[in-house]
Amino acid sequence: MPAVPAPAPEATRRSPLGATDPDALGPALLRFVEEILPYRRSLTGDGLRQTLAAIGEHVPLDVTEVPTGTAVFDWTIPPEWRVQEAHVTASDGQRVVDWDGSALALVQYSVPVREQMSLRDLRAHLYTAPDHPTLTPYRTGYYTPTWGFCLSQRRLDALAETYGEDAFFDVHIASEHVEGSLTYGEVVVPGATDREILLSAHACHPALANDNASSLAVATALARGLMDGPPLRHTVRFLFAPGTLGAIAWLAQNQDRWERVAGGLVLANLGDAGGFTYKQSRRGTLGSPLPIDRAVALALRDRGEPVDARPFAPTGYDERQFGSPGVDLPVGRLTRTPHGEYPEYHTSGDNLSLLRPASLAGSVGALADVVAVFDGDGTFLNTAPFGEPHLGRRGLYAALGGRADSPALQRATLWVLNLSDGAHSLLDVAERSGLPFRTVRAAADALLDADLLRPSP
Amino acid sequence: MPAVPAPAPEATRRSPLGATDPDALGPALLRFVEEILPYRRSLTGDGLRQTLAAIGEHVPLDVTEVPTGTAVFDWTIPPEWRVQEAHVTASDGQRVVDWDGSALALVQYSVPVREQMSLRDLRAHLYTAPDHPTLTPYRTGYYTPTWGFCLSQRRLDALAETYGEDAFFDVHIASEHVEGSLTYGEVVVPGATDREILLSAHACHPALANDNASSLAVATALARGLMDGPPLRHTVRFLFAPGTLGAIAWLAQNQDRWERVAGGLVLANLGDAGGFTYKQSRRGTLGSPLPIDRAVALALRDRGEPVDARPFAPTGYDERQFGSPGVDLPVGRLTRTPHGEYPEYHTSGDNLSLLRPASLAGSVGALADVVAVFDGDGTFLNTAPFGEPHLGRRGLYAALGGRADSPALQRATLWVLNLSDGAHSLLDVAERSGLPFRTVRAAADALLDADLLRPSP
Amino acid sequence: MPAVPAPAPEATRRSPLGATDPDALGPALLRFVEEILPYRRSLTGDGLRQTLAAIGEHVPLDVTEVPTGTAVFDWTIPPEWRVQEAHVTASDGQRVVDWDGSALALVQYSVPVREQMSLRDLRAHLYTAPDHPTLTPYRTGYYTPTWGFCLSQRRLDALAETYGEDAFFDVHIASEHVEGSLTYGEVVVPGATDREILLSAHACHPALANDNASSLAVATALARGLMDGPPLRHTVRFLFAPGTLGAIAWLAQNQDRWERVAGGLVLANLGDAGGFTYKQSRRGTLGSPLPIDRAVALALRDRGEPVDARPFAPTGYDERQFGSPGVDLPVGRLTRTPHGEYPEYHTSGDNLSLLRPASLAGSVGALADVVAVFDGDGTFLNTAPFGEPHLGRRGLYAALGGRADSPALQRATLWVLNLSDGAHSLLDVAERSGLPFRTVRAAADALLDADLLRPSP
Repeated sequence: MPAVPAPAPEATRRSPLGATDPDALGPALLRFVEEILPYRRSLTGDGLRQTLAAIGEHVPLDVTEVPTGTAVFDWTIPPEWRVQEAHVTASDGQRVVDWDGSALALVQYSVPVREQMSLRDLRAHLYTAPDHPTLTPYRTGYYTPTWGFCLSQRRLDALAETYGEDAFFDVHIASEHVEGSLTYGEVVVPGATDREILLSAHACHPALANDNASSLAVATALARGLMDGPPLRHTVRFLFAPGTLGAIAWLAQNQDRWERVAGGLVLANLGDAGGFTYKQSRRGTLGSPLPIDRAVALALRDRGEPVDARPFAPTGYDERQFGSPGVDLPVGRLTRTPHGEYPEYHTSGDNLSLLRPASLAGSVGALADVVAVFDGDGTFLNTAPFGEPHLGRRGLYAALGGRADSPALQRATLWVLNLSDGAHSLLDVAERSGLPFRTVRAAADALLDADLLRPSP
Repeated sequence: MPAVPAPAPEATRRSPLGATDPDALGPALLRFVEEILPYRRSLTGDGLRQTLAAIGEHVPLDVTEVPTGTAVFDWTIPPEWRVQEAHVTASDGQRVVDWDGSALALVQYSVPVREQMSLRDLRAHLYTAPDHPTLTPYRTGYYTPTWGFCLSQRRLDALAETYGEDAFFDVHIASEHVEGSLTYGEVVVPGATDREILLSAHACHPALANDNASSLAVATALARGLMDGPPLRHTVRFLFAPGTLGAIAWLAQNQDRWERVAGGLVLANLGDAGGFTYKQSRRGTLGSPLPIDRAVALALRDRGEPVDARPFAPTGYDERQFGSPGVDLPVGRLTRTPHGEYPEYHTSGDNLSLLRPASLAGSVGALADVVAVFDGDGTFLNTAPFGEPHLGRRGLYAALGGRADSPALQRATLWVLNLSDGAHSLLDVAERSGLPFRTVRAAADALLDADLLRPSP
Repeated sequence: MPAVPAPAPEATRRSPLGATDPDALGPALLRFVEEILPYRRSLTGDGLRQTLAAIGEHVPLDVTEVPTGTAVFDWTIPPEWRVQEAHVTASDGQRVVDWDGSALALVQYSVPVREQMSLRDLRAHLYTAPDHPTLTPYRTGYYTPTWGFCLSQRRLDALAETYGEDAFFDVHIASEHVEGSLTYGEVVVPGATDREILLSAHACHPALANDNASSLAVATALARGLMDGPPLRHTVRFLFAPGTLGAIAWLAQNQDRWERVAGGLVLANLGDAGGFTYKQSRRGTLGSPLPIDRAVALALRDRGEPVDARPFAPTGYDERQFGSPGVDLPVGRLTRTPHGEYPEYHTSGDNLSLLRPASLAGSVGALADVVAVFDGDGTFLNTAPFGEPHLGRRGLYAALGGRADSPALQRATLWVLNLSDGAHSLLDVAERSGLPFRTVRAAADALLDADLLRPSP
């Protein structure tokens, strides 16, 4: 288990991902996506390790290797997959499909192959996206000994026209499945308590920009910003792991940590031009919204950002694992356009052209606000609960009464006093009053200073 | 108390009401309505018995006779009513109103009368439906020693014009109120357990096609279909009884059976061209929807049939009795157009012309689906609840990942696993996922086979 | 603490505010507003006492004086404020602002002043309503040793134009802050029990007609009407007190009375042409609506009056005090147009021209209905809860069945029987059935007479 990291060295503190000006942060995020996009990420292997190392250039990262064969709940860590080369060559010597040119060209975890096949027979191993004929799909076959190539429908049609169904092709996949490990990385921003906010992004998709290189960049910048920012009560843990099995492995190896998770988010698709979509935590959907669900809603409300809020469903990203019935952590999911809802999803079309610097920076800002709201919540007791206290003599109320207007802080003061009955928290105040959480928190702080509020035991 | 009936004999099994093709079932249902429509049903008597006997031609029926004078809760079974003849004759010898020609012509339970009256005086005993001047209304006077005739407003106006208010008429009602009994019939489709689904239709209205001969036909066909269909976990009980007092008599005589009723429906007006209206059970309205309420909603949703769902109200049919505060059984009501909401309601206009074979057959199909959903519900425990189990190695998941689409059964599998925490049932899964209940149940069965699910204790 | 008052003497019983014909009551209410409008009400003092005395001409009123220096929760009763004269005089001898002409001209509780100031310096003590340049604002400075004059923006602009910024003005405020008391009045309409309905209106605003002379008139007429009307189960207490501190003083001096308050309303702005706005009680907003919240909704529904229902908020009138977290009484607020939502609010524009006799009388009628609903609620047990009881033999049901229509009382009878399970009250019946509360109550009374209902223990 990684220890709490030492303070960041000076070099790290000057990371461009720590920029606080969105106009500087957006381009820095885009450059970071460009940097990590070429790494050949997969469920395991060196592409994943290179990606984590790139993140570690900006924030202190702890890397965990889970060896092949390790049992993690219902699963076993598979062999590591390594590819030297993979291509399909026509009889005229032309390499018509080549993994060297595109990480998507080979079905992930393809077994080694060296044979000659007619196009007719080869078709069973060729995957296209017929609805998007110019795009190459992304396919995986982690747990089945299979192989295949991905290409565009247009390319496949051209092959058929040029060579015919009976033409033979030389298929060569030089891959290995060897003892190794599954790799994940963690960044911990220490807080005053060991109650944790868990933020997770998957790190296994190769060559896809929005899904999910964008969120690796956003999470890294957020971690950098939180480290450079004011102290927090919660410890914030970032998890960068391959999808599904990475989350399952982390859960299996950190069972003692589950109870510390006060709230969390799965982060995905945070770079496109779309607005935010929030998927509630499992418990928030089955019961009442949890603090993390409410903090997301408030932070986006206060930013004036519309949000498409959706109930939990056991499909999607790693919220499936965090929200499995035996785990059931308070973890939601924040995306911009969700998976499957943009045409380029899981194809070669999910490239840099989909990303917007302002979207990337806006995602960092929104998440920073979510953390601020979640971390700033609290439940208090009004120490003068019989009628309103005399705020004027404490300098907490405008001196001259009778005015129709009422500044936000003054209203927030009345709201905090009224709801500080031990049963309502500042989230309740912000929700019911419609006042910005920041203002509500400021009113609470002033009332704490004036001894009109004390923490609820 | 009727015993569980023996298996149906071959003859019964070939009932045309057991047709599974709606195009054959609809006309068969209409013919059955035509057959029973002429029987002179009332609160008691031979018309009611003839109707039950007709049902008994198709399904094994147990008949109960509750003797006159029997106390049933706050009520007493009244004498049986028998009519030999009843008519009003003008001085010119013309029978201007005659029960022989229409069962509706006489107010139900009219006392015997033999006297001469002017039209002016007779008017106090003549009932019309002024808003529908060509139709004869249906009136009862079960518990008050009274008498009267029903006729159309147009007919009454014609009498006045022809004869004048001072003309005398010979009124003759040859009726008896004798020791006898109130009759009800039950059909029981035995299931694996003694938990019951109670389906009830009233059998007292004479000459009215939609209200309620249609539902007698629908219920009979449903019983036939369930007997011929796959085994059920619940025992399904059909009750054919006169309205109000029949239900009260059944409740009084079957108090030990109340606790076995897991859910039920009052069936009425199931033959007209309208869509479905569902009236919730009392407890489902006062608290949260009950399984029967939810099963109706799901079954109709899955059939693509819109439903007008309404809260419980203590007016209407026998849901008033099942939903009385001391009984409070989980019984809703399914109709097409509810009583009082079609102009022909409780008049001679409620005749065969209102019925549609497709509506009748569709009602049987909808009810069969409601039974299937209610009976197929269950609560399970995921045996591998920490993260998702590895479905691929059990053949429960598409081998090749990364695809944007996800077939319904695969999604249902994930939903069932996720909600099988002992606190949610398959109804919850179907409601929350939007997936057809049938698919959800199939996913649960496959997971049970794979030992990934076990029944919740 | 005031004792329960003796029966009103004959003279009082003939109060014009006791008129039951709205066409007579409306003008009487307007005349009463005209009578009390000139009294120079403030947080303390003789204007407040004159107002209470005027109320006491119509209903038996108990007056309480709380001495200066008395601690009431977090507050202390301040000195009494008395003004002999207050004006600003130009060098040409013209009194350009004069409290003698308008009670609003002086900031409430202004300290004594006698000095000469340039207009430039005087401006810091001059208050206008720039958005409504012809109106004089209302300002208070109860708890800060300050002074000021209020005038219209147009008047101020004219002064500047006539005299210039450098012109000197003679400022004279002859005011005193002396040992005295804060005054409040109570009217008690005794009921059969000591469970109380608390109706409160503030009595501190000078010269403002809608806010809140209108509600003093409405409350007085309501008290008069309740005294002259049928006996009530609840005791109804009217509180006429200065805003904020008056309510706090009453709460502090009547802590043993809090638990008797079954429901209550703060009354304000009840004379303008607008429809009703209801602000829920604190507990009704944080949890489920309370009986008082529901009684208001039902009474207005039954009157066919739309109502703008709003959640509790700790801003507004004395619901802030009754709804403070340590007090938390079941008190809502009924207004027509709420404070701050009409342009003349807290200015000289809030004068008699805003009031409508029909609005004033309609407010009295609506409140009388609220009291009738709240007082008429009850929870009962159906003594024949198994099926419907045989209503016909008790004369509680139309003799002739089968009719499509169903008069309201008959439906109410079924509803009351069905929901009289000890867990639902007549409010529930009226809400769920949509039937007028009056009809529901009549049905319950008939069922009580027939022994089909008994009070729920």
